[in-house]
Amino acid sequence: MATRDWEALKVKVMQWIKEAADQLRASLSGPLEVSEKSAHNDLVTNMDRAVEQFLIDKIRSAYPDDKIISEEGFGDAADTNDGVLWLLDPIDGTLNFVLQKRFFAISIGVYENGFGKAAFIYDVMSDELFHCLSGKGAFQNDKQLLRLTEVSIDDALLDLSATWLKPNRRIDENIMTDLVRRCSGTRAYGAASLELAYVAAGYLDAYFTMRLSPWDYGAGLILLNEVGGSYSTAEGAQIDILSKTSVLAARPGLYEYMAAHIRDQVKQGKFIREPS
Amino acid sequence: MATRDWEALKVKVMQWIKEAADQLRASLSGPLEVSEKSAHNDLVTNMDRAVEQFLIDKIRSAYPDDKIISEEGFGDAADTNDGVLWLLDPIDGTLNFVLQKRFFAISIGVYENGFGKAAFIYDVMSDELFHCLSGKGAFQNDKQLLRLTEVSIDDALLDLSATWLKPNRRIDENIMTDLVRRCSGTRAYGAASLELAYVAAGYLDAYFTMRLSPWDYGAGLILLNEVGGSYSTAEGAQIDILSKTSVLAARPGLYEYMAAHIRDQVKQGKFIREPS
Repeated sequence: MATRDWEALKVKVMQWIKEAADQLRASLSGPLEVSEKSAHNDLVTNMDRAVEQFLIDKIRSAYPDDKIISEEGFGDAADTNDGVLWLLDPIDGTLNFVLQKRFFAISIGVYENGFGKAAFIYDVMSDELFHCLSGKGAFQNDKQLLRLTEVSIDDALLDLSATWLKPNRRIDENIMTDLVRRCSGTRAYGAASLELAYVAAGYLDAYFTMRLSPWDYGAGLILLNEVGGSYSTAEGAQIDILSKTSVLAARPGLYEYMAAHIRDQVKQGKFIREPS
Repeated sequence: MATRDWEALKVKVMQWIKEAADQLRASLSGPLEVSEKSAHNDLVTNMDRAVEQFLIDKIRSAYPDDKIISEEGFGDAADTNDGVLWLLDPIDGTLNFVLQKRFFAISIGVYENGFGKAAFIYDVMSDELFHCLSGKGAFQNDKQLLRLTEVSIDDALLDLSATWLKPNRRIDENIMTDLVRRCSGTRAYGAASLELAYVAAGYLDAYFTMRLSPWDYGAGLILLNEVGGSYSTAEGAQIDILSKTSVLAARPGLYEYMAAHIRDQVKQGKFIREPS
């Protein structure tokens, strides 16, 4: 296999995202076709499907040997990290897309033999692209993101959904209580790729969730890695990019503090259950 | 007292906000002077004070007989609704201002004899102004906001801080649990005036907090009233615009549902404690 020209890939993907975003913006002036998937608040629209198909056609045409894991199922059933793998979400934050018509993103992460190589997270309505090529620095549009520095829990802004603070199937609702109590404040934006990008950009100090799919976190983890952010499953295990997983992502220092707290809570008997 | 020309007031306030926002944007390129007020995460910066003083000078010069209640204390100690009262927050979302350099707003609400007359909530970094004159329609920049329609709890996006879902002094952390479990999703942006404006604009279906000051909610409630939103204290009492208070604000229908749920929980013995 010839070495890939990642700069050329970046130029292509940015152009595809621009075209996909034009389709998305145009769609918001008319009615959306919305239907439910696994649950009442797990929505899919005609635009999720149309934009996914559009992007997959572009990827397959330019890189026919690559594999694609995507939210709406037009991609491949990849079961290996070998080769080049695309993790694609045409609309991350579909609930925001439907209810708010903003705060949603196109998320594309590209891995080679399991290593993150290129990431693109585009906030369509605010025209804000978080992107990087591994080793070349991460950017918010044209502005290079700084390497993340340490922060204490007391000064930290944490992003986590209220879901994990009331009784639920995935985590004892008391595990995160002390962290929420000690931190400076909590936020929740409802679009995982953007929330991971916000950690990378320093707008948030940590992001925590018990349930994400590869297309949700694929690009975000690459971006985080590029700026020195730390991440793992909730219990500190390495994330398998082919699987649904919990995600704890944070600035260095804060990550270790939060991970130790969660491990300690689990040791005391509180439960964590990974998604499957 | 001569009848006030509210259209002329609107033109003036919009110009003042524009100038204040220019100062705020310019300040973000240099270092901020940050200090703590009542708590570790209750911050004030040199810019909160400078912009408050700037706006108060403008108000006093144009409307010398009016009273002003403002966050940083350069206003008046108003204890009556008589006459014209300005509720002013130079930077709502100071933690966002300091940590994110965005998602903060200038909030100005103007009341006459206790009735909301004019509201201005300006998201400085996204250049988005939510505004209204009572009876003349509410606007997001130039776009008129629609009258709010009903929504069920199952389809609702609720905004509330994680603070109210873990043990705290103001509300039994279990009161909101069933609402969070049933709704479509939760959000938290960390700037009350914007969150109230988002309910008015239909981006959120409800906003709930146990602790706001007049300058935080003054403009937001006027905007909500203009589009048919409902609001009260957490327990359903009318809000006294001179006092710190809890706030439940929502679309019609959803408001009644949430208020009834909270009343029922309190009747069952769970506590709510208003701020003083």
